[in-house]
Amino acid sequence: MATLIAPKQFSPVEDAENIKKACQGWGTDERAIISILGHRNAIQRKLIRMAYEEIYQEDLIKQLKSELSGDFERAICHWTLDPADRDAVLTNSALQKAEPDYRVIIETACIRSPEELLAVRRAYRYRYKHSLEEDVASHTTGYIRKLLVAVVSAYRYDEDEYDTEIAHSEADILYQKIQEKAFNHEEFIRILSTRSKAQLKATFNHYRDIHGTSITKGLLGDPADDYLAALRTTIRCIKDPQKYYAKVLRNAINTVGTDEEALSRVIITRAEKDLKDVKELYFKRNNIALDDAIARDTSGDFKAFLLAILGRDEL
Amino acid sequence: MATLIAPKQFSPVEDAENIKKACQGWGTDERAIISILGHRNAIQRKLIRMAYEEIYQEDLIKQLKSELSGDFERAICHWTLDPADRDAVLTNSALQKAEPDYRVIIETACIRSPEELLAVRRAYRYRYKHSLEEDVASHTTGYIRKLLVAVVSAYRYDEDEYDTEIAHSEADILYQKIQEKAFNHEEFIRILSTRSKAQLKATFNHYRDIHGTSITKGLLGDPADDYLAALRTTIRCIKDPQKYYAKVLRNAINTVGTDEEALSRVIITRAEKDLKDVKELYFKRNNIALDDAIARDTSGDFKAFLLAILGRDEL
Repeated sequence: MATLIAPKQFSPVEDAENIKKACQGWGTDERAIISILGHRNAIQRKLIRMAYEEIYQEDLIKQLKSELSGDFERAICHWTLDPADRDAVLTNSALQKAEPDYRVIIETACIRSPEELLAVRRAYRYRYKHSLEEDVASHTTGYIRKLLVAVVSAYRYDEDEYDTEIAHSEADILYQKIQEKAFNHEEFIRILSTRSKAQLKATFNHYRDIHGTSITKGLLGDPADDYLAALRTTIRCIKDPQKYYAKVLRNAINTVGTDEEALSRVIITRAEKDLKDVKELYFKRNNIALDDAIARDTSGDFKAFLLAILGRDEL
Repeated sequence: MATLIAPKQFSPVEDAENIKKACQGWGTDERAIISILGHRNAIQRKLIRMAYEEIYQEDLIKQLKSELSGDFERAICHWTLDPADRDAVLTNSALQKAEPDYRVIIETACIRSPEELLAVRRAYRYRYKHSLEEDVASHTTGYIRKLLVAVVSAYRYDEDEYDTEIAHSEADILYQKIQEKAFNHEEFIRILSTRSKAQLKATFNHYRDIHGTSITKGLLGDPADDYLAALRTTIRCIKDPQKYYAKVLRNAINTVGTDEEALSRVIITRAEKDLKDVKELYFKRNNIALDDAIARDTSGDFKAFLLAILGRDEL
């Protein structure tokens, strides 16, 4: 379930006018902007952008960029983008880093639905004039490249049915390769990137039933081995996205100085989807409510904005 | 340009009724069926299928299958399918063979536009309850599998612009790997499967400018090496689809006993696209008109149908 609280009734024109007012004059009224955009869902935000463009002949995101700064600017601009376009921007910035952040690529590839992933690929191509897989391939190398290119290119079958025989035979293949420590074996990538999520969950469950341990445990190894870590991330994203996100949030908050980028990425991409479930898992595991943890670790408009879309206003 | 001749005015209901009439009574009037379906474009055929279903509560293709037989049956059923669905059927039968026919996979992946390929993947998933790349991966092995999975999963950038620097640097990479006979090098697959067609054409042209020979020449080797052949097919399909198809037709016709499957696949998939250009290339290279060659090599209703969609009726 979502955490975002958005009114059923709203006026895109009024919202656009109020955002314009908040941007005019001396200083910007960030809290006014949060009180509007922090309570509008994706369709409503799109309508506001359209109304803004229509009235002021100006792109709302450009306007926000010129008025705001820092983590808050980045967060609210990402939030205001269409979800598929936002994922395109997030994957692109993940690739542009000196050390590409493979987690963002895998999240997008494995947590979005097959149709959503296609929409991201379409948005990416439109925005960057390259295909997503093309950029992934040119910014990465070795086995991790094979894995990432395969998962971003996938258009998985998307129904709940699965084949029990395949679950058994492929759990066997994975087990055998893990026993041999042949983590680079191409069967890993084939299975993880082409099978449907329902099929993979059945395979992972069968693996656990037979061997009494989860497949990700078998893939522990040198912590510096990015490929192994990426395999585990892929499996976690497919097996249990909410649990995966709760863990990303935990790491982002517990890291020295807070990883604002990861924090805001998860909150923004999930607030309209399943952030309530992620919050519950977070609380169970950490004995502190996610919004309390965030309130403690962040400040200013960035904090106010995250809490707003988390459903807890502190204005 | 297309070869198909279809009237602007037509009545789906009348057509459906006339096809039903041709199927009723003693024997089937194949020529009547050809005179209708052999002169209707994809949208018109779709409307006829819908009208048929509506009037007779029966699927037109099922009806045709039960009335007809042999090469003619297969050809007219493929023809009557939606183009994307037809490609899904063609790739699936190519995969079901004891020796999967990689050419059909590569044609579909590299000659269809990126959006058309997505439509094929969607149709495939709907029809076979697996993703296309999943089935390609489970029916093939080794390097050819890597190549095929990569090209069917691609969603290439699709504009005409390209990067001259990339064309130079990647032509160099390809040349170096060819010199080293490192045909299995992963850069081959990365470049061929992720770059846009415009980019690849620029790269191939630069290769030829610098080295005075085409890249496919450098990839000649053991004729039994399917992976090398598949690399060449990929390059040909991207570089010049019409020339590629003209060659497939030439082989299909010149083989002992005629390869009816390949012949009908090319005619059917291109009749509404560029078969006129393919015909011209065919004539230039073989000194015989394609329709004459086909008329000489085929017979009966199959011949009559192919000639009809080739724009030459012999009823």
